[in-house]
Amino acid sequence: MSKRILVLQGDGIGPEIMAEAVKVLNLANEKYELGFELSSGELGGASYDKYGVPLADETLERARQADAVLLGAVGGPKWDGIDPALRPERGLLKIRSELGLFGNLRPAILYPQLAESSTLKPEVVSGLDILIVRELTGGIYFGQPREKRVLANGERQAYDTLPYSESEIRRIAKVGFDMAMVRNKKLCSVDKANVLASSQLWREVVEEVAKDYPEVELSHMYVDNCAMQLVRAPKQFDVIVTDNMFGDILSDQASMLTGSIGMLPSASLDVNGKGMYEPCHGSAPDIAGKGVANPLATILSVSMMLRYSFAQAEAADAIEQAVSLVLDQGLRTGDIYSEGCRQVGTAEMGDAVAEAL
Amino acid sequence: MSKRILVLQGDGIGPEIMAEAVKVLNLANEKYELGFELSSGELGGASYDKYGVPLADETLERARQADAVLLGAVGGPKWDGIDPALRPERGLLKIRSELGLFGNLRPAILYPQLAESSTLKPEVVSGLDILIVRELTGGIYFGQPREKRVLANGERQAYDTLPYSESEIRRIAKVGFDMAMVRNKKLCSVDKANVLASSQLWREVVEEVAKDYPEVELSHMYVDNCAMQLVRAPKQFDVIVTDNMFGDILSDQASMLTGSIGMLPSASLDVNGKGMYEPCHGSAPDIAGKGVANPLATILSVSMMLRYSFAQAEAADAIEQAVSLVLDQGLRTGDIYSEGCRQVGTAEMGDAVAEAL
Ligand SMILES: CC(C)[C@H](C(=O)O)[C@@H](O)C(=O)O
Ligand SMILES: CC(C)[C@H](C(=O)O)[C@@H](O)C(=O)O
Repeated sequence: MSKRILVLQGDGIGPEIMAEAVKVLNLANEKYELGFELSSGELGGASYDKYGVPLADETLERARQADAVLLGAVGGPKWDGIDPALRPERGLLKIRSELGLFGNLRPAILYPQLAESSTLKPEVVSGLDILIVRELTGGIYFGQPREKRVLANGERQAYDTLPYSESEIRRIAKVGFDMAMVRNKKLCSVDKANVLASSQLWREVVEEVAKDYPEVELSHMYVDNCAMQLVRAPKQFDVIVTDNMFGDILSDQASMLTGSIGMLPSASLDVNGKGMYEPCHGSAPDIAGKGVANPLATILSVSMMLRYSFAQAEAADAIEQAVSLVLDQGLRTGDIYSEGCRQVGTAEMGDAVAEAL
Repeated sequence: MSKRILVLQGDGIGPEIMAEAVKVLNLANEKYELGFELSSGELGGASYDKYGVPLADETLERARQADAVLLGAVGGPKWDGIDPALRPERGLLKIRSELGLFGNLRPAILYPQLAESSTLKPEVVSGLDILIVRELTGGIYFGQPREKRVLANGERQAYDTLPYSESEIRRIAKVGFDMAMVRNKKLCSVDKANVLASSQLWREVVEEVAKDYPEVELSHMYVDNCAMQLVRAPKQFDVIVTDNMFGDILSDQASMLTGSIGMLPSASLDVNGKGMYEPCHGSAPDIAGKGVANPLATILSVSMMLRYSFAQAEAADAIEQAVSLVLDQGLRTGDIYSEGCRQVGTAEMGDAVAEAL
C-alpha cells in the first residue's frame, strides 16, 4: 500500500529548502522501497496568493487524506498589510488545529561539529540534547472568547482566553512521559501555577499522569525560572513539557542555545501519530531566493517523519548519519559557517547529503 | 518634611540581605541628610505566619502612607501546602495591584568586574545594558474571569483571561519611551500580535504613543523571537517594553544573561513615581540563614529608590560607586565568586559597601 505525503513548501526560503528535502526523501523512498507518493500544495502566503486564504479547503482535505505532511515555512513582509485573519500564520494555526496536531516535539540538540556556533560557553552547552514537548492545539492560541471591543467609557480593550481541560493536559503529559521513557527518564513540566488557574490544573493533571510512569523523575518549574535555567545550566533538562504559549517561547529560546537553529526539525502529531513535520526556523524572507538557506532542518524533518509517522527507523537513521557525515566533511551553509570550513549553498548542501546517503 | 520608607524583609534570605541594605540606607540617610524615617512590616510567608494572610490590611495601609517601599523577597517551600489564595506570592501580587505599581523597571546589566560569571561568551555580553519595562498590574496576572470548574461532560477545566485596555497599554508604553529617551533612544515593543487579540491592540497603541516620541527608534518583535534574540545577540536591545507575563519571562531570561542575578535591582512605580524596590532574585530558601547570600541587588535597589522616588541622584550614584569599588577590591559572595577573588559573606559584603560609601 502506498503512503501519501503532502508537501507544502510555504513561503520565503520554503521552496528552496524543500527542494533539497524532497531530493533526499525521493532517494530514501527508492533505496528503502518505502512506497511513498508525494504531492504538493500551498500554505501561508503562497496559498493566499493563489486562493485568497492562507489554507484552502481543498488543501486541508488533501492534508487529511495524507499519511503525513511535510512543511517548509510560512510568512513574510509581503503579507504584512493584509487582513490579520488571512495572514500566512493563520493557515499554519488552522492546519494544526484542524488536523488535531496537539503534540509538538521540538528537539534542541547541539551538533558536536557546530559547538562553536553557540553564543554560550562550550562547557555550558556541549552535548546539549533537550526535547521540548509543546501543547499545540489548545490554550491561549485558540481559546474563546477573544475580542477587541470598545468599553462603555469609550476606551478600546482587547482580551484573550487561556483555557485547558483535563483531557488536553493529560494527552500532552502522556507524550512528555512517553518521550522521557525512551530518553533519560527525566521530565520537567513547566507552568506558572503561582499565578494562573490553568497552570494549577495543569500541575494537578500532570501529577495524576505521573502515577502511570513511576520510573520517570518528574519536576515542576515556573516558566520564568525555566527561561533562566535554560541560560544558566541547560543540560539539567532532558524532556520539558509545557503549554502552547510557554512552549512557543521556551522552544525558540532553547533552539537558539545550540547556535544552529538552521539544523533543528520538529514534529506535530495527532492522537494516532499522524504528523506534520517542519523546520523550527522561519521563512527568512531576507535571504529567500538567494540559494544560501540551510536545508538541513528540513532534511532532518524528513528523518523525523520516517521515524514517527512511518516507523522507518533504519531510513531515518541513515538520513541523520548522512547529515552528520556532511558536517564532518566541513560543509557549511552561511548560518553555521565557521573558519576552516567550506561554505556552500542550499543545493550543494542538499546534494552532499543525498550523495552521503 | 520627613520621608517614610516601609521596609518589608519578606522570607528566606530576605531578612539577611535587607539588614545590609538598611545599613547602607541609614548611612546614606545621615550622610546626605535625606530625612528618611524607616519602619518595617511583613509580606509573604512572614505575614502569613503572623496574620494568616500574605498581606495584612494594616501593612497595606502603611504601604499606602509610605513614600516608598523596600522589599526583600517572598516565598519558600514552607508554605507550599497552604491554600493557594494565601501563598506568599499572592501578597506580592496584591501589593503591586493595590498600590497601582504598573511600571516595572528591570535592568539587566553586566558588571565588567563580573564578565566571567555569564554563561555566554564574553564578546556576546560584554557591556550588556538592557532595561526591560514590564507592565505589572494588568494582563493575565489579574484578568477576570478566571476559574477552575467542571464541564457538563464531567471534565475539569480551568481558564484565565488576558485583557488589556488602551489606557493600560498607553501608560506603560510611555514609561518605555521615557526610559528610551534618557538612554539610547531605541525601544523594542514585544508582543505576540500574530496570535493574540490583546497583542494586536498593544501594537496599535504603542504605535500611537510613538508619535509623541519622534526621536525614539521603535521596533516590534514577537515574544518567541525576542527569547531567541536575547540569546543570539542581546546587545541589539536598549529598552524593551512588554506585557506582564512576557515581561516576567523575558526579564528573568535577560537577568540570567549577566550571570549575576544577585546583582540586579528592580523598581515598580505608580503613576506618581511612588515605588516599591526589590532585588530581581528570589528568596533562595536553600541558603537562607547561612549568611552567604549576595546583598548587592538589595543595596542597588536602595540606590534605585533614591533615584526614582526621591530624585537623590547624588546619593544614588554614591551607592552604585561604592558597590563598584567593592567589586574592584575583589570581594565576592559565593554566587559571583571566581578564581583570584576573596569570598565573603552577606554581612561582610554589606560592611564593605558601607565602608566604601
Ligand atoms: C508563526 C507562529 C504563529 C508560530 C507559533 O507561535 O506557534 C511559530 O512561532 C511557531 O512556533 O511555530
Ligand atoms: C513570585 C511571582 C508571582 C512573580 C511574578 O511572576 O511576577 C515573580 O516571578 C516576579 O517576577 O516578580
